[in-house]
Amino acid sequence: MSTQASQVELDRAALHAACNAITACDETIARITQERLDQKTKPRKSLGALETLACRYAAIRGTAQPALPSKAVVVMGADHGVAEEGVSAYPQAVTAQMLLNFAAGGAAINVLARHAGAEVRVVDIGVKEPVAHSAVVAARVTAGTANFVHGPAMTEAQVLRALCTGIEQAAALAASGVTVIGLGEMGIGNTTASSALTAVLTGASVEEVTGTGTGISDAAKLHKAQVIARAIQVNRPDPSDALEVLRTLGGLEIAGLAGVVIGAARAHVAVIIDGFIASTAALAATRLAPNAGDYLIASHRSTEPGHRMVLRALEREPLFDLGMRLGEGTGAALAMTLLDAAVKVLLEMATFESAGVADSGA
Amino acid sequence: MSTQASQVELDRAALHAACNAITACDETIARITQERLDQKTKPRKSLGALETLACRYAAIRGTAQPALPSKAVVVMGADHGVAEEGVSAYPQAVTAQMLLNFAAGGAAINVLARHAGAEVRVVDIGVKEPVAHSAVVAARVTAGTANFVHGPAMTEAQVLRALCTGIEQAAALAASGVTVIGLGEMGIGNTTASSALTAVLTGASVEEVTGTGTGISDAAKLHKAQVIARAIQVNRPDPSDALEVLRTLGGLEIAGLAGVVIGAARAHVAVIIDGFIASTAALAATRLAPNAGDYLIASHRSTEPGHRMVLRALEREPLFDLGMRLGEGTGAALAMTLLDAAVKVLLEMATFESAGVADSGA
Repeated sequence: MSTQASQVELDRAALHAACNAITACDETIARITQERLDQKTKPRKSLGALETLACRYAAIRGTAQPALPSKAVVVMGADHGVAEEGVSAYPQAVTAQMLLNFAAGGAAINVLARHAGAEVRVVDIGVKEPVAHSAVVAARVTAGTANFVHGPAMTEAQVLRALCTGIEQAAALAASGVTVIGLGEMGIGNTTASSALTAVLTGASVEEVTGTGTGISDAAKLHKAQVIARAIQVNRPDPSDALEVLRTLGGLEIAGLAGVVIGAARAHVAVIIDGFIASTAALAATRLAPNAGDYLIASHRSTEPGHRMVLRALEREPLFDLGMRLGEGTGAALAMTLLDAAVKVLLEMATFESAGVADSGA
Repeated sequence: MSTQASQVELDRAALHAACNAITACDETIARITQERLDQKTKPRKSLGALETLACRYAAIRGTAQPALPSKAVVVMGADHGVAEEGVSAYPQAVTAQMLLNFAAGGAAINVLARHAGAEVRVVDIGVKEPVAHSAVVAARVTAGTANFVHGPAMTEAQVLRALCTGIEQAAALAASGVTVIGLGEMGIGNTTASSALTAVLTGASVEEVTGTGTGISDAAKLHKAQVIARAIQVNRPDPSDALEVLRTLGGLEIAGLAGVVIGAARAHVAVIIDGFIASTAALAATRLAPNAGDYLIASHRSTEPGHRMVLRALEREPLFDLGMRLGEGTGAALAMTLLDAAVKVLLEMATFESAGVADSGA
């Protein structure tokens, strides 16, 4: 017992230290970057969100002349006790099967990350049966969460370990030179957990934040909303205590990704959020460490209804809306190609002066 | 006179032949492609517009297993007589200066095309002063259009030559193996021409389709709308005669890009439209050859108000809206990275069967 208690203490202290070490971005750098973009041979701000993105990335990196991004997608996989309530279109075994698919390179995130030139780091943070593959990082906190309809999804030790696992993964990637991390996840049942978290963290109603996930029927969606409402009633977490909300209603991969946000922000690494689940993790992270919000880039708007509430709470406009609802970090990977484009505009375009083009000042 | 007359006859016949040779896409192939995508390890249609894009490209190419796209952006540059009415924020000399910038590789389209792995073909189709650079294709029809406030922008010989120049450029690219062409343009004053064309071709009011272009004031926008209204009144083209509309109110680069659409569609090459001007050219092309519409992919929604009307007339939803208003083919180049991603999903993703993942059928 005493060793376990001390691990909890260590994790609590590490989380606290990481959150406190996150500094707000220097917005002066964003302004200087915009001034540099205004010298380029194009009407002022005519590349729209691409220019805003370049300025944000520069501010995150702390320089108006950032190098081309070095990219990774962290895909955390875990199982959810609530899956036994029949809230998903897929059987629980799919979590492990998909992690093996990620490891073999055949999933959508593999294809899109290769396309973006991003490394994929697959982490088993709590799949029911261990995923044995050399390309999967074994960082198992426990064999899936408890069914939160009957009580908390996690113990305090578990949620802290999951958060610290994310912080550690982000720190390792930052140390290896990665400058932008996309958030990916896999976990049958995890839109149910995200809907519960979103309802509590944003104050939205359960009905508003519950969707069809990977593709359940309308009747099944009603059942899913009832399950979520029951879970909130049974656990009654204090909405202002994000750690408690994560512990009672979260998932191991969601807490892990919240940790990735905290670890990345501490290291001045940009974080590209993905769809509903990854965004919920980011929202939890900003409640634990408000400055972490400065390091977030929203990629796409998912078709999951709760995603809108989370993006609003994060005060982020996504770059695109392609009607995607796959998760895994697929939207984040696509956004990385836009981030690269934005940074290349900043680094490679000629100026009015260098190209001998007349400038209207428009 | 007799040689010129015969060139007109040749061009008229070539345009007619090209338009007639365009076949509608085989939509069976789009359906077969969707069935292939439905076998991949993801919930059905969960990649949204990316899946639709893969299906469209497959139908255009005539195979459910298309190779990765080979990409080019055709940037046509020309001057506009109407520029003397003071409708732009920039002096007319900027057209030539920017073509030299394209040739030197320093413009936004160069950066974004390199990012997408696309060749940039720069065509001087009628800049006022010839653009002398080895990287610029000299295909000058005339030294800019006439000011259409006083009469037609072009003669029949000129508009036919511009269209055929586009057809020839597309045919040459298709022959070299290019399978997707992005439409780019440069021409001080060309949002004025596009607004006039859009008003006549869609029946929208001049006020609705007139915007601030590269960045003029609200007062200058009012003046621009008056210029456009006067031009339509002076020329009174028959809205059902697209060739006549192009001749009287068009631009050389706009007619040239309409030709690119026709030439590409004939060769089963996909066309990615860009912002307002390129989209207007595509609309004119579909009026000349209705089947050409099947080969169009809309990239982005520009901030120019007329772009919405044109996209509606083309029945196309753009892939993204980044608040861009630069032209040059920049939106088309960005969309090419999405097209590549979509085709890679089709070609590289594992199936439920090959990956050993349980399929819910959802």
